[in-house]
Amino acid sequence: MQRDFTHMTTRDHFVTADKEDPLAHFRQLFDLPENVIYLDGNSLGAMPKEAVSRANHVLRQEWGNDLIGSWNTHHWFELPQRIGGKISQLIGGSAGSCVATDTTSINIFKTLASAVHIQAETQPNRRVIVTERENFPTDIYIVEGLIEFLGAPQGHQYELVLVDDAADLEQLVRSRGEEIVCALITHVNYRSGYMWDLSATTQMVQQCGALMIWDLCHSAGAVEVDLSSAHADFAVGCTYKYLNGGPGSPAYVWCADRHLENITQPMTGWWSHRTPFAMQTHYVKTTKADQFLVGTQPILSLATMEIGIDIALSVDQSTLREKSLALTSLFIQLVESRLGHHELTLMTPLDETHRGSHVSFSHEHAYPIIAALISLGVIGDYREPGVMRFGFAPLYNGFTDVWDAVETLRRVLDEELYRAPEFQIRGAVT
Amino acid sequence: MQRDFTHMTTRDHFVTADKEDPLAHFRQLFDLPENVIYLDGNSLGAMPKEAVSRANHVLRQEWGNDLIGSWNTHHWFELPQRIGGKISQLIGGSAGSCVATDTTSINIFKTLASAVHIQAETQPNRRVIVTERENFPTDIYIVEGLIEFLGAPQGHQYELVLVDDAADLEQLVRSRGEEIVCALITHVNYRSGYMWDLSATTQMVQQCGALMIWDLCHSAGAVEVDLSSAHADFAVGCTYKYLNGGPGSPAYVWCADRHLENITQPMTGWWSHRTPFAMQTHYVKTTKADQFLVGTQPILSLATMEIGIDIALSVDQSTLREKSLALTSLFIQLVESRLGHHELTLMTPLDETHRGSHVSFSHEHAYPIIAALISLGVIGDYREPGVMRFGFAPLYNGFTDVWDAVETLRRVLDEELYRAPEFQIRGAVT
Repeated sequence: MQRDFTHMTTRDHFVTADKEDPLAHFRQLFDLPENVIYLDGNSLGAMPKEAVSRANHVLRQEWGNDLIGSWNTHHWFELPQRIGGKISQLIGGSAGSCVATDTTSINIFKTLASAVHIQAETQPNRRVIVTERENFPTDIYIVEGLIEFLGAPQGHQYELVLVDDAADLEQLVRSRGEEIVCALITHVNYRSGYMWDLSATTQMVQQCGALMIWDLCHSAGAVEVDLSSAHADFAVGCTYKYLNGGPGSPAYVWCADRHLENITQPMTGWWSHRTPFAMQTHYVKTTKADQFLVGTQPILSLATMEIGIDIALSVDQSTLREKSLALTSLFIQLVESRLGHHELTLMTPLDETHRGSHVSFSHEHAYPIIAALISLGVIGDYREPGVMRFGFAPLYNGFTDVWDAVETLRRVLDEELYRAPEFQIRGAVT
Repeated sequence: MQRDFTHMTTRDHFVTADKEDPLAHFRQLFDLPENVIYLDGNSLGAMPKEAVSRANHVLRQEWGNDLIGSWNTHHWFELPQRIGGKISQLIGGSAGSCVATDTTSINIFKTLASAVHIQAETQPNRRVIVTERENFPTDIYIVEGLIEFLGAPQGHQYELVLVDDAADLEQLVRSRGEEIVCALITHVNYRSGYMWDLSATTQMVQQCGALMIWDLCHSAGAVEVDLSSAHADFAVGCTYKYLNGGPGSPAYVWCADRHLENITQPMTGWWSHRTPFAMQTHYVKTTKADQFLVGTQPILSLATMEIGIDIALSVDQSTLREKSLALTSLFIQLVESRLGHHELTLMTPLDETHRGSHVSFSHEHAYPIIAALISLGVIGDYREPGVMRFGFAPLYNGFTDVWDAVETLRRVLDEELYRAPEFQIRGAVT
C-alpha cells in the first residue's frame, strides 16, 4: 500500500500537516540555520542545542577545572559503556552488549576478526567473507585489508565475494554456503537507500552456518532496528548521522549475548583489560562488549554525542519510522507529480519495507544540480556516479521542507539554473 | 653535572625564579583552577583557554551553522594531516610522515603490523617482538593481541620477549638479534620517568636488522625528540599529556620517509584510499603517512586539540627541556633536603640524560599520601605498586609550585595526614 498525498496540492496543506505532526516539537531541540532546508542528516545530523552546553561543561568544568579527577567524578571511564547501553536499547540489544568507541571502519574490523575467530574454532574450512558490491566502500576495503592480513592459514586463503542483491546472496548461500564465514551487509544502502530485510537476511545467512554482521550507519535513529529479534550476530554503526552525535562522533559496536565470550579482536588494548589499573604485565580480557574497547577515547566528542543519543531514545521508534516514510513518500510523489517532465530516475525502492530514510535520484547533471540546490539553501548531497541524495531526518525535517525542496528543485531544473556559473559551487560530498 | 639549588632556601627565592623564567608567560595561556598545584600534566594536560573558543567555533559555526559543508570549508578532512604535520615538526619528522588519528593503542597495532610486514618480505624467519617489561601495559597487550592474531605463518609462531632495561636489550640483540622483528619502547617510562637514549637504542636495535618503534606518550611536548636524527622507523604518541590536547584527544602515528611505501596496516579504511570519494569497489592505498588513517575522526576533539599543539610548537624546545630539568631537579633536591627523614625512595634517574618530565617516589603509604595531597590541592597521581608520580609541565608549572608542593608533602608526612579519614578520598588514578 502506498501513502497518498495527491489531495495535498498547495504549500498550505503541508504547513497544516506540520502542525499536526506529533514529532514537530523535536525540531526546536536542534539548531539549524534559517533559510536552509537541511536534507543531509543522513551524512551529518543537525546539532542538538544542548550539545553546546554539554561540550562547554566538559571543557570548562570537567577538563579545565576538575582536571584528571574527572575520569572518576564525571565518569569519563564509563562513557563507552553508558552510551553503548543506550544505543543498545535503540537497536534491540541487551545491556552490556554494545559500546560506543572508535570508528565504524575500525569496529567493522573488530567484528570481522571475531567472526573469523569463532568460525576457525569449529569450522576452519570456511574462507568466504561476503558483502554487497554496492556497499559503502569502507566496508569492502576493511574486508580486503583483513583478508590480506590473515594470509593463508593452513595454506588456504580467505576470499572476498561481492553480491549484487538479496537474490544473489541467496544463490551464494545455496551454492557455497558451507564456505561462508560471515556476511557483512549495510542495512540501508548509503547510495540507493535500499533497506535489506534484517530478519530474513540474517536467517538466510545463518542457515548455512555463517555469521551475520550488520552495518547500521544509515538506519539507527531513523529506522526501527531490533537486532535481538532478528537474531543478528554482530553490528556496528556510526552516531553522526540520524543520531546527531556531531561530526565524526565515536561509532558503536554490538555483539549478541551468545557471542560475548568469543569476542576475539586483535587490538587488545588496556581499556578492555579486566583490571586496567592493576597495570598487569599480561592481558586478561573483560567479559562484556567492552572487550571491543582498545585505547583512550576522545571524551569531548564522546560526551557531547550523548545528547543526540538521548534525544533519539526519547522518541517512539514506530512514530519516527512512520514520519520518515511519510516524508520520503511525499518527496517521491511530489517529484513525480511536479517534475515528471525531467529526466530524473528514482533509485530508491517505492516499496516501503525496503526503503530507508533517504531518497536518491540519478540525473545526467546530478552534480551541478546539487551545487545549485545548495546555493539556494536546499542541502542534499552528491554521490558518484551521478546520484543526488536527499536525507529526511524525521526529528527535524517537516512536510513543508519537502514541498519547498521539491519546488526549489523544480526551479533549478525548469530554469536550468545548474548551468549558471554562480551556482556551480563545490557541493558537499561527504 | 647536577643543577644546584642549595642556595635557594625560602619560598621567595622561587617566586623570584618564576619572575625570571623565560617561559613564565605561557602559564596565562592555560585555564587552571585557583589554589591548585597541578602536577599531573603527564596524565592529562591543562586546558588552553583558546580551546574553549575553538571548540565553540566547531560547535556553533562549523557543525551547527555550516553543517555538512564544513568538511570542505572548514577543512575537517585535512585535520589529521595538518595537525599530524605540526606534530611531525615537534618530533623531528618531515611533512607527510605523521597523521593525528585514532588512539595510541590502535596506532601501536598499525605500526607493529607494518613492521611485521616489512620484515616478512625479506627476513621471514624473524619472529621476536621485543618490548620493555615495565612498559605501559597497553603496549605489551597490543603486542600480545597481534601475536595471537598472526597465528603461525609457515608453522612458526611470533614471540613476545620482555626486557628489563637497555643492558638487557643489548644482550638480547647479541644473543637473538637475527630473530628480532622490532622493538617497541616507550621513550620515557610512564611510572619511573626513566628516559631511554633515543639514538643509541635505535642504533642498537637496527644493528641486528630489527626495526625500532618509539612510543612518545610521555615525552613529546616536554622532552626534545628528533626521530630523524635518531633514524627511528616508526613512532606513536598521545596528545593529551604534555601536548594539552584535551581528554582522550586523538593520538598520532609517524613513519620514517623510507618506509612510507611499505606501510601495511590491516585496517584499510576509506580515509586512506587514494580517492575516497570516487567510491571505488576496491582499495587503493594512498602514499604518505595518511595510509594510517582508517575511518571518520572525532572532529570536535581533533580540532580542539590543535590549540595545544600550536602552543607546543611556539616554544623553543631546548628552553622547554631546560626548564623541565630544572623543575624535576629542584623537586628531587627539595624532597631530599627537606624530607630526608621520611622513607621516600626515588624511582626516577638523577642522571638528567635519562630523566623525562615527571618524578616518582615509592612509599609504603603512597596511595593515601596522594589522596591527602589531592585534598590539599596538590594534584599528583598514584600508580601501582606503591608509586607517587609528580609531573612537571614546563609550560604552566613554576618553581614556586615545586616549593609549595614539597611543603605540602612535608606536612602530609610530618603530620601523618594520610592517616586522617577526611583526606582519604579516592585519588586520580589515570
